[in-house]
Amino acid sequence: MSEDIRAGEIAVTLPDTFDAGIYFIGRIRTPWTRREDCPKNARGSDAVCTVEVDERYAAALEGVTTCTHLVLLYFMDRARRDLLVQSPRHGERRGTFALRSPVRPNPIAMSVVRLMRVDGTRLTVVGLDCLDGTPLIDIKPYFPSVDSVPDAVVGERTKTSP
Amino acid sequence: MSEDIRAGEIAVTLPDTFDAGIYFIGRIRTPWTRREDCPKNARGSDAVCTVEVDERYAAALEGVTTCTHLVLLYFMDRARRDLLVQSPRHGERRGTFALRSPVRPNPIAMSVVRLMRVDGTRLTVVGLDCLDGTPLIDIKPYFPSVDSVPDAVVGERTKTSP
Repeated sequence: MSEDIRAGEIAVTLPDTFDAGIYFIGRIRTPWTRREDCPKNARGSDAVCTVEVDERYAAALEGVTTCTHLVLLYFMDRARRDLLVQSPRHGERRGTFALRSPVRPNPIAMSVVRLMRVDGTRLTVVGLDCLDGTPLIDIKPYFPSVDSVPDAVVGERTKTSP
Repeated sequence: MSEDIRAGEIAVTLPDTFDAGIYFIGRIRTPWTRREDCPKNARGSDAVCTVEVDERYAAALEGVTTCTHLVLLYFMDRARRDLLVQSPRHGERRGTFALRSPVRPNPIAMSVVRLMRVDGTRLTVVGLDCLDGTPLIDIKPYFPSVDSVPDAVVGERTKTSP
């Protein structure tokens, strides 16, 4: 895939083997079936999405209804994994670890969602921007005491930034 | 390991094969070498920790210094993965997806950290509670616009909760 690289981008040769394995524990249902239709960021979307948890893990949902918000981890299984520096079409060149792009060595996305309803193993949520069918890998309760930093800043890079 | 189960806990038989693989991209250095020494939650700790990113991924750090806070994903490689309902020693019984316990089908932790300094591939951060040597799997910029929900609530379970 390295032929698809844009000017200024840097790719890496990934290791030959993985260090650990993950299970897909469900699927995320969203209105978006093509990457270009996905909202540019989750804040821009009030779309109601559905998280379908596999029956195997149903018992792990006990108590989830006490949470107003959840952290979802999911696997961007259609993203390449070898880019270390990216030049987004609308944005400045940045290292992958300074971007929320799905393209990264481990294409695991993290989204904070508002939990609207739980029906058995189906969770209705707001706050996602991923493709329909995206594999789910974890659900966690969101604790503002450790997860919320309202005054955090992601700055613009300037000529003097490293 | 199922003999180690506590009253009220529920274990599952995990699938025979993994669905995807992940790379360890570095290691986290903390003051804690035994699980019982780790802080009960990251808020309780002002300990300064170090994130050592593998040289292979050095270029991906470009622009990270513009972030005051980062999201770290790391792999709790010593945790069992088969518990769906857990009875914490100090806490009520809950489903794994309503807990931040390292024990989960995919033992991937998410922490929001304050970035103090970047020296080459070493990041100095505050806000971690994991064991020394924990494998790192991702670094992301923290955006309050989508990641911060100060009024989120994780409620107590009551007799009437499902």
